[in-house]
Amino acid sequence: MAWIEIVGLFGAFLSSITFIPQVWLAWKTKSVGDLSLGMLLIVFTSVIVWLVYGFYLHLLPVIIANGIIFFLSVLLLYFKFTFPKK
Amino acid sequence: MAWIEIVGLFGAFLSSITFIPQVWLAWKTKSVGDLSLGMLLIVFTSVIVWLVYGFYLHLLPVIIANGIIFFLSVLLLYFKFTFPKK
Repeated sequence: MAWIEIVGLFGAFLSSITFIPQVWLAWKTKSVGDLSLGMLLIVFTSVIVWLVYGFYLHLLPVIIANGIIFFLSVLLLYFKFTFPKK
Repeated sequence: MAWIEIVGLFGAFLSSITFIPQVWLAWKTKSVGDLSLGMLLIVFTSVIVWLVYGFYLHLLPVIIANGIIFFLSVLLLYFKFTFPKK
């Protein structure tokens, strides 16, 4: 595997885990007031677009990364809509 | 241009603007307590990795998208470190 492919996989890995600390913080504090709903909706939409792209071109890293981000963004949207406003 | 390329460009566009609503909300409220520092650091790191990838493979959409995200993530990190804790 060329080193640049490893760089790409590392980027995909980092992008996949981006929202894990945010999900953890939101769950721990039950506070999401400073989290932008617009950001979450753009993430959700972009993930669906990237999944169409990844499935069509059979790009497994794109599919896996966005599958994980899809799950995390749905969690954050659920928190945003259900945690009480402060 | 094939329709799937347009899908990819649309995904890149959405990913580029992901943090604009978050920067706007943070700037407006001067409140970033619910924003995960871990998330911001992962975004910052992943963007650098993707820029290496994009420059090496001459992938202009990757370079442009991550250039924009780099700028926005630096802004959010600056807010996170300078806005007073509540």
